[in-house]
Order: sequence, then structure tokens, then C-alpha cells
Amino acid sequence: MPVQIRKLDSSDSDFKSRLSAVLAFEAGEDAAIDQAAAQILADVKARGDAAVLECTNRFDRLDAASVAALEISQSEMQQALAGLPAGRRAALQTAADRVRAYHERQKKECGSDGFTYTEADGTVLGQKVTPLDRVGIYVPGGKAAYPSSVLMNAIPAKVAGVQEVIMVVPTPSGVKNELVLAAAAIAGVDRVFTIGGAQAVGALAYGTDTIPPVDKIVGPGNAYVAAAKRRVFGIVGIDMIAGPSEILVICDGSTDPDWVAMDLFSQAEHDELAQSILLCPDAAYIEKVEASINRQLDAMPRKDVIRTSLTNRGALLKVRDMDEACEIANLIAAEHLEISAENPQQWADKIRHAGAMFLGRFSSESLGDYCAGPNHVLPTSRTARFSSPLGVYDFQKRSSIIQVSEAGAQTLGEVAAELAYGEGLQAHARSAEYRLK
Amino acid sequence: MPVQIRKLDSSDSDFKSRLSAVLAFEAGEDAAIDQAAAQILADVKARGDAAVLECTNRFDRLDAASVAALEISQSEMQQALAGLPAGRRAALQTAADRVRAYHERQKKECGSDGFTYTEADGTVLGQKVTPLDRVGIYVPGGKAAYPSSVLMNAIPAKVAGVQEVIMVVPTPSGVKNELVLAAAAIAGVDRVFTIGGAQAVGALAYGTDTIPPVDKIVGPGNAYVAAAKRRVFGIVGIDMIAGPSEILVICDGSTDPDWVAMDLFSQAEHDELAQSILLCPDAAYIEKVEASINRQLDAMPRKDVIRTSLTNRGALLKVRDMDEACEIANLIAAEHLEISAENPQQWADKIRHAGAMFLGRFSSESLGDYCAGPNHVLPTSRTARFSSPLGVYDFQKRSSIIQVSEAGAQTLGEVAAELAYGEGLQAHARSAEYRLK
Repeated sequence: MPVQIRKLDSSDSDFKSRLSAVLAFEAGEDAAIDQAAAQILADVKARGDAAVLECTNRFDRLDAASVAALEISQSEMQQALAGLPAGRRAALQTAADRVRAYHERQKKECGSDGFTYTEADGTVLGQKVTPLDRVGIYVPGGKAAYPSSVLMNAIPAKVAGVQEVIMVVPTPSGVKNELVLAAAAIAGVDRVFTIGGAQAVGALAYGTDTIPPVDKIVGPGNAYVAAAKRRVFGIVGIDMIAGPSEILVICDGSTDPDWVAMDLFSQAEHDELAQSILLCPDAAYIEKVEASINRQLDAMPRKDVIRTSLTNRGALLKVRDMDEACEIANLIAAEHLEISAENPQQWADKIRHAGAMFLGRFSSESLGDYCAGPNHVLPTSRTARFSSPLGVYDFQKRSSIIQVSEAGAQTLGEVAAELAYGEGLQAHARSAEYRLK
Repeated sequence: MPVQIRKLDSSDSDFKSRLSAVLAFEAGEDAAIDQAAAQILADVKARGDAAVLECTNRFDRLDAASVAALEISQSEMQQALAGLPAGRRAALQTAADRVRAYHERQKKECGSDGFTYTEADGTVLGQKVTPLDRVGIYVPGGKAAYPSSVLMNAIPAKVAGVQEVIMVVPTPSGVKNELVLAAAAIAGVDRVFTIGGAQAVGALAYGTDTIPPVDKIVGPGNAYVAAAKRRVFGIVGIDMIAGPSEILVICDGSTDPDWVAMDLFSQAEHDELAQSILLCPDAAYIEKVEASINRQLDAMPRKDVIRTSLTNRGALLKVRDMDEACEIANLIAAEHLEISAENPQQWADKIRHAGAMFLGRFSSESLGDYCAGPNHVLPTSRTARFSSPLGVYDFQKRSSIIQVSEAGAQTLGEVAAELAYGEGLQAHARSAEYRLK
């Protein structure tokens, strides 16, 4: 049975409302999950290690004697790395090296040195940039355990200069993922605890006798983890709460349709809520991609997930021209945007909102997912309108520097006092006036 | 009656637990307020302008006929500016000019141009930086209506290149704050609506027929506003939810004690939950500051607020030496840190965590609050461990650029396919393999 993927045309009178329907996604907020996460957090805050141990033994069906017994040693991580088949180990190392190189470049280019400047009267103003002290990385256990995510979360932290990176990863029934441990070894993760869920988020946020408190928690997790992260936000920093993954392909109609179909599959295979959309001005080409989807689907091991994703959330959109494709892409603000076209830069220049842009036919999203270098943790669900890929800057923070000279205090003091009186804050005004001669 | 401000000594055996008690602050989470905010948001999402108008007329005791009637025109903003006394207008303009100059510098220094680099095989990697399209600024009405906050929130957005800045400010009983409107005019705010509360947050997040949806909402508000901002986070970006303001003064004992006492007052006068702490190695100097506090307090118009703040949340800490003062300052991670000392840079070099550092005796916090140039929206409640002053970067976002050459796709494709098969994602692997010759 052919995939019932939606087909829209921008010249349809109801195009805008149909596009909105395609994009609509409400992250389910489950009050029961939120309450359960809140209770676990409160328990971990009150009882520390004892609570973490009880939750872990219960939810992950373990029989550990202490939280310390749940720590994985550096030598076990190194063994996991040494035990990999040579080809896989080499691929992981190449990916890590490229991710590190990109983020080193990013660190250099994104103002990590801070700045100061001196005004005519000797007043110095500026900004100091420092790494976070300690960061926690949540890595899911089970089916969604991706070693590439370990690299993408840990390496930017280390490049930023974070002293201690603590990874948590649940091991339901005691099953460890050797590739994940190997990735942790390559990425330079400092400590690993085999805990997960809201109890792991609580341990990282509040600290326990065994697990030191961190300053920020990053990495994806299930609904309990997401609820717990929302609740500890403010005690620690968190990354964005990720929604389902998305790909938007803009194609000028000159790429092999099989390539584009497979690129759409590569997003759809993630999960049934993932979203794959094609924008193209060439109706005949869209037909070819649709035919390719139906021809290639049955050979895919994850064909059921792909079919459901494409049916419920996918779309093939006929647009007037490439300019309109770019306009619509800015509305969609996709996590991954492929511009599969001749001279892609002309279209990239028109894109304001996208997590990552893959330019030209050889830039498949999968290359970026693993080893191109830029981060694969990207803003989903239109949040690329206001947020950025995970980066070195997420593991740094800035402090303003204000060193007012005696001369500077004479002019600034008068201005500050005038405005402070205007706001009814007399101590502010007097504090400024004390510095006047 | 003398102020009962706590005095601690780092050599006391119970120092750490007493310091923790001083710093402890739990932002009250009020389930009733959260529920009320959620209901208002749902109403605004469902009914748009009608809901905003009803809430505004009811909560702010107005009788407006439409949301459009709640908009303040540019000419009314300009009239507010023209109507200011000349001295106040000049002070506001000077402050705005200095804030703009600092943020222009910040924009230049913080990687706003993005970057690209080309690898040996022709693959191009990089990062594109773009401003947000449209931003909402929440400005409280009533007693906490600070024109300086309008400048500090709107100017970085405009410097970043945000096309449209929409300000909301409630006007309970129809009372408008002319200084706030004048500041909006100077800062270049594009549109102003006299709405507030959760209904204003909802209008900005979802958009209505009259009020366009924004991409990010910044600015302080009451508990309803904070609850609403937390709930719309993800639909739009938000800034940090600010806690009570704090000052930490490290003094080497050589600054006029009256200056330091007044600097502590300038924080304490904000509200009863504000926190003022002094760290000093000189016990006799601490006595002098305490005497100055008691001598100066009665002359302060906001003496009751100052007394309550210093009694409940203030502290004078005797430390072993300036090095220990810096260690403790890193634990406290204060919003405002004054280093009132000779050669302050040597101590500033040891500080890892602070929102803003004020170096030397002439750099009173009040100068930074109004007109030094750096932003006065700063991380509170120890969040300087992982977050930064409001800045141009909060109104920009980044997109990764990945343009893989045909040659690059040959090497990257093999690595990506190897790792994709390892993760069980066959469409990812095939997508990479299609690009191999």
C-alpha cells in the first residue's frame, strides 16, 4: 500500500491553514508524570544517596549496595573502547576528532576571550568569559542510546574548559551499552554513574554524598527526565527540552529523487512523531520522489516507523519558486534544512531560521548527525526562531567588567544620581554622589 | 535600635552551614498563581483579543473598547520624552548612549559575524548568526516601573538587529508612567501596548488579531508574569526568571566605610528580600561599616525596607585574607560583585562566578545600574555559575552551516554509515552511502 503522505500546493487557497496543521505539534504535558518527577526530586533532595539508590534499584531492576557501586571506572570505559571492532573504533575517533575541531574553531570565533576597552577618562568596561565548573550529561539507556550524542554533548563542554563532566546513563536490568561507554572514553567524560530518570536529574542538581552537584544538565531523556529538568531549571542550567526531530528539504528538482527520499526516511526512522517535509517548485519531481518513497520503503528495516511518521507528519509541498521555498522555510524554522540545489548559497542567504543548514546535494543530514563536525543537538519545533545549536557557548558564561576611574565617577555619578532620584531610589543616588568630589 | 545584621567569621567551626543559611532562598512556587496564569494563557490562546481586553479591563480597572485602543502611539511616546525636565532627559539620553555603545562593542566582539572555514577537500563548515525577528519586552507597572530597565532590555535587542520590539506595560487605573514612555522612545521601541500580567505574556506568545506574536519575551514581572513566562517557554524564548537582587562587596579595608555602607543600602532598598553581604579580612573595618550603617540608616527614605533586608538577608563576613574572600565570592556567585580594594584586578582574576564585577572604589554598583554601559539585567541566586548578563547574544541565534564537497562525502560517508549501522539507523546509513561513488 502506498504511503499516504500529504501533498500541498502553495497556490491552494487553504494552503496556510493546511501548512499550520502539518506543523502543529503539542508536547503532551502529563500531570501525573510531572507529579511523579516532583516527588522523586523532593526525595533525592531530602535523602540524597539513599533515595537515588532505592529509585535506581527499583526502576532499573538492580540490586546495587550503594551509589558508589553504580559508578563506572575509567578503566572500564577504556576497556569498552579497546573492545570495539577496529572499524567502528576508528569511525568513532574520526567523528570525535572532527567534532572537536569544529568546536575549537567555534570557541575561537565566538568571543571566548572576552574583551575590555578603556574610555578617554580611564574608565574600563568589558566582559570576562569563563567556563562552567561542572556539567552533567544525561544519556538515555535502552533503544535511544546513541554514542554520537555522548560525543555531541561532552566534547563542546570539554572544549569550553569545563573541569568535570559527569555522565549519567541508566542500565535497565544491568545491561550496559559498550558503544556509549567507549564514546564517553573518547570524549573525555570524567565520571559515569549508571543512574537515570528523575533521580539522576535530582542527584546532579542537588548533589549527594557520592555525586557532586553540577552547574548545568544537558542531554535528552524521556518524559520523566524532561519534567525533572524543567523543575530544576534555575538551580542548575538546562539545555532546551527537545521535541521530535525534523528535516526540511528544499530541492530545485535536479537531485536524484532516491537521495532525497532516503534523506526524508533518515528523519522519519527516528520515531513516529519525527517530521519530514519536501519543498520543491517542480511538480513532476515531487511525483518522482513520491514514487521513490514507495519503491524504497519496503527494504528499510524501520519501515513501519517511517510509514507512520510520513503518513501522520510528513508532507510534499509544491511551491511557486525557490524564493517562495525560502520564505516557507523561514516560517517552518526547521531543525535540519537541506538545500539540495545548484548554487545553494544563493538560497542559504535568504534563510533566517534553521538549526543547521545542509548545502548542496552531497550534504546529507546523516553526515552532520555523525561526523561533519557541527553539533547535532539542534533546536526543534520552530525554536530555531530564537535558539541555537548546542555549542561551546552553552558551557561558558560571561561576567561584565566595570572599572570606573575617579574622573569617570564624576560624570557618571551625576547621571546615575539624576536617574536614581527619578526612580525613587535614594541610596542608589547617594552611593553615586559619594564618589563625587 | 541598631540593625541586627548577621556577623560571621570564616574561622568559626560552623561557618559553612551559617553561610548556607544566609544564602538559602527558595522562590515560592504558588500553585494557585500558576493555575490562574495557566487559565489566562489558555483563554488568550483560544479567544485572542477578546480575552486580552476582558482581563485588562478587569485587572487594571480600565474601560477600553478594544485592544487597539490600548496601543500607545509613537507621537505619545515622543511627547512624553519632550515633556521631561531638561536635566532628566539629558541623563536618560546619556545613559542610553552609553548602554548602546557598550552593546555595539559587545556585538562586535561576540562573534556576531559568524564564521566559515574550508577544509582541504573543499568541504565548508561554519556558523551563521542572525537576529531574532520580533521581541516582546515586559515592563512592570506601578512602583517597580523603572525606565532604566526599558533601556537595558530594548537597546541590546535593537543593537542585535531585531526588526520589531514590542513593549507591554500595564497601566492600573489608567495611570501612565511618563519616564517609562520616554525611555521607550529613546530606546527605539517600535510598539507599546498598555497591557500586563499573564494576559500580556499570552498575547505576545500566541499573537492576537491586534498584537503580533513575538519570538522571545524578556523583562521582569510579578509572580503571575513569571508563571506565565515559564509556561510559554518553548513556544517563545524567555530570559531568566529573576530572583531578589544581590550585592557582594569584597573590601580590603581601605575604602571609606560610609561608601561601602551606602553601597550595601543601595541593594537593600530594592526590596525586603534583596541581599547585601560584605567580605573583609579586617575586623576593625567591619565594625566601622556596621557603625556607619547604623549612623546613616535613619536618613534614608526607604529605611524600613533597608532595615528588614539587612536584618533578614544581610551579612558582614570576616575572612582570613583577600584570597579567601575570592574563594567565598565564587561560592556565592553574586549578581553584583564590588571589589573595593587597591589594585582590584589581582582579585578579579581569581573570580570565576559573578554577574557583573565592579572594580575599584569608584565603581559603585549604582553607576552600573544606570549608565556605565553594561547591562543591569544580571543572573541572580547563584545562577551566575551558569548564566550571563542580558546581552546582544540573547537576541541573536546561530545556524550551523554544512556544505560537504563531493570528495568530502566520500570520507565522511563511510564514517557516518559505520556509526549509523552501529546505532541501528539504516536510512541514515543509506543516505550517506548514496553519496559514495
